[in-house]
Amino acid sequence: MDPRVREHARIVAEHSASLQPGDNVVIDAHPVAEDLVTALFETCADVGANPLAVSQRTGTRFRRAYLRNHEGEFELPSHEMALFEEMDVYIAIRGDANVTETADINPAVSREYGKARKPLLDERLSKRWVLTQYPAGANAQLAEMSTEGYENFVWDAVNKDWDEQGEFQAQMVEILDPAEEVRIVSGDSAEGTSASSQNSTSSGYTTDVTMSIAGNTTINDTGKHNLPGGEVFTAPVLDSVEGEVLFDKPLYHQGREVTGVYLRFEDGEVVEHSAEKNEDVLTEVLNADDGARRLGELGIGMNRDIDQFTYNMLFDEKMGDTVHMAVGRAYEANVGEENERNESAVHVDMIVDMSEDSVIEVDGEVVQRDGTFRFEDGF
Amino acid sequence: MDPRVREHARIVAEHSASLQPGDNVVIDAHPVAEDLVTALFETCADVGANPLAVSQRTGTRFRRAYLRNHEGEFELPSHEMALFEEMDVYIAIRGDANVTETADINPAVSREYGKARKPLLDERLSKRWVLTQYPAGANAQLAEMSTEGYENFVWDAVNKDWDEQGEFQAQMVEILDPAEEVRIVSGDSAEGTSASSQNSTSSGYTTDVTMSIAGNTTINDTGKHNLPGGEVFTAPVLDSVEGEVLFDKPLYHQGREVTGVYLRFEDGEVVEHSAEKNEDVLTEVLNADDGARRLGELGIGMNRDIDQFTYNMLFDEKMGDTVHMAVGRAYEANVGEENERNESAVHVDMIVDMSEDSVIEVDGEVVQRDGTFRFEDGF
Repeated sequence: MDPRVREHARIVAEHSASLQPGDNVVIDAHPVAEDLVTALFETCADVGANPLAVSQRTGTRFRRAYLRNHEGEFELPSHEMALFEEMDVYIAIRGDANVTETADINPAVSREYGKARKPLLDERLSKRWVLTQYPAGANAQLAEMSTEGYENFVWDAVNKDWDEQGEFQAQMVEILDPAEEVRIVSGDSAEGTSASSQNSTSSGYTTDVTMSIAGNTTINDTGKHNLPGGEVFTAPVLDSVEGEVLFDKPLYHQGREVTGVYLRFEDGEVVEHSAEKNEDVLTEVLNADDGARRLGELGIGMNRDIDQFTYNMLFDEKMGDTVHMAVGRAYEANVGEENERNESAVHVDMIVDMSEDSVIEVDGEVVQRDGTFRFEDGF
Repeated sequence: MDPRVREHARIVAEHSASLQPGDNVVIDAHPVAEDLVTALFETCADVGANPLAVSQRTGTRFRRAYLRNHEGEFELPSHEMALFEEMDVYIAIRGDANVTETADINPAVSREYGKARKPLLDERLSKRWVLTQYPAGANAQLAEMSTEGYENFVWDAVNKDWDEQGEFQAQMVEILDPAEEVRIVSGDSAEGTSASSQNSTSSGYTTDVTMSIAGNTTINDTGKHNLPGGEVFTAPVLDSVEGEVLFDKPLYHQGREVTGVYLRFEDGEVVEHSAEKNEDVLTEVLNADDGARRLGELGIGMNRDIDQFTYNMLFDEKMGDTVHMAVGRAYEANVGEENERNESAVHVDMIVDMSEDSVIEVDGEVVQRDGTFRFEDGF
């Protein structure tokens, strides 16, 4: 076994899940992630925790077979519920034999299945939980990388000193947490530091968006629930978003790639949208419910070991020198008592590249220019 | 997927487990058995049952990793117990990537682990349960067969008309159930129909053993708990076994092969034993406890699609034209109220080839000669 698998397991157990003697652990993985599950069983033994391996994730052939053949209403299975109620820690491992395994499942059936199983999700989220990635060949393929290249990528992003990374990110939390207003400018608009030119990119669009984050809480993601971690995120005040965003990185939603997503906001709401490819997927997301046309998250990617886009939001949203915005649901922990929370059923992240011709302004001051933060050398 | 996998799943679900709508099902398998688990998920969906895939079996790298690293006492994990309490059906699938995966686990640790988890086993056995086999490469290798040859072998033995097989076996149940005494003769001793010559085989030993089964119940194994099924079995009366047995087929115990096992019984107890290879393994089994020196089971193999020995007791004990005897624990269902039950911690089956120079006598009458039953053509 690659020694980096054992290091990965150690970080999951010690840093993310804070495994304790006697903990009842459920490890949920596709069969291809056998190495990491094995290493986690070792770690559980070392700590004195009780591991159970299950395989219920989206993307397993099991799940597809069940959903393809099921008819009628879904039940909430009481044996799974009983398991989760007695569980202390839930470790979910991404890693697939085929990332398009869900391609021939009716999305409406998946939604009904998810709805019936919502109490299981709530139970899981009430416990210590971690979502991480095993570098399987299919995920490498999605990232357009060799398997070994992808292994290096994943373990570089995951197996790091999270205390040090957390301190680096905390500098940005200190700026955002007490702030009132954030402005994100990228593309031709950003050519002057305090950008205001209306020159557009070749698509005719550019990014210049302003939002209030007043009263909301900025969270430092140091790899506790998501491994890799590496973002700093908050929630925009619901009606405050004004301006336009051209997302540079493709959105990969329900097995389809949407490129060149453009959104224009007025009073917090998307009033115009377009995409270069698969615009109908974007339209469907925005029409899901009222909250789906409003932002629920603003995140700053700060994990510079994630240096390329891999069509996997667990990594992409933490990529160094990017910001991401999600339409839909806001995290409860981000929303201050005075502010309304976006309670949409969807939460779809989209990414803007900030490495060139870009600035982040906070309360009128530039805090990042072309990917370099104010608190770094070379700013 | 090979259509025989779906047929296998259908038989497990319909015939063995009698799956019902709303059943909470746990399917426990090694990752190599992914095809059969997938087919079972389809079948669960068809029926309206709720499947959960887990991977806790002996022979997984998970289990080995846990047992190698564990120190101190084992706990009974309450989350697994809660799962089993809410479970209606337990489906265990044999199938390995390496049948010697347990080779470097301390057997004493495995025993302690099993002891701590005994309530989980009891809970499982109190539900509908099935043990079956997926024809993985490692199991083919153990059987000294090609993978495709082994697939044919497994699915021939499993995917059959169990009602018809059950009727064939019932003829032997009718003979054994009301009977008082059984005599098994094999080797040179059997040359006369009512054999009494003392000529021995080249090893110096032969088989001529007599036992009472009076008051005990003969069970017809038609593939309900074991798939394949195909035996008819009862329990000898504890002190009644007299004579000697030379087991023709090797015993494969805790990863070691024991050949040429010879046992001599007086008043039901093994008073002499030997083996050609790895006799110490046999000695250890017999010394486990008092019951380990007495028989707990007499079985007649009647599944003629199992036509070769594959070092896998799930198949071997049902092989056509064989009988098997187990030292150790008797099944509760076999032992009549008037008789004492062997409650040993061990139950180790061993096999005698009855296809040549052999007879089974019941209450003094020959009921099988050289593998042909009294109720068959050619007797």
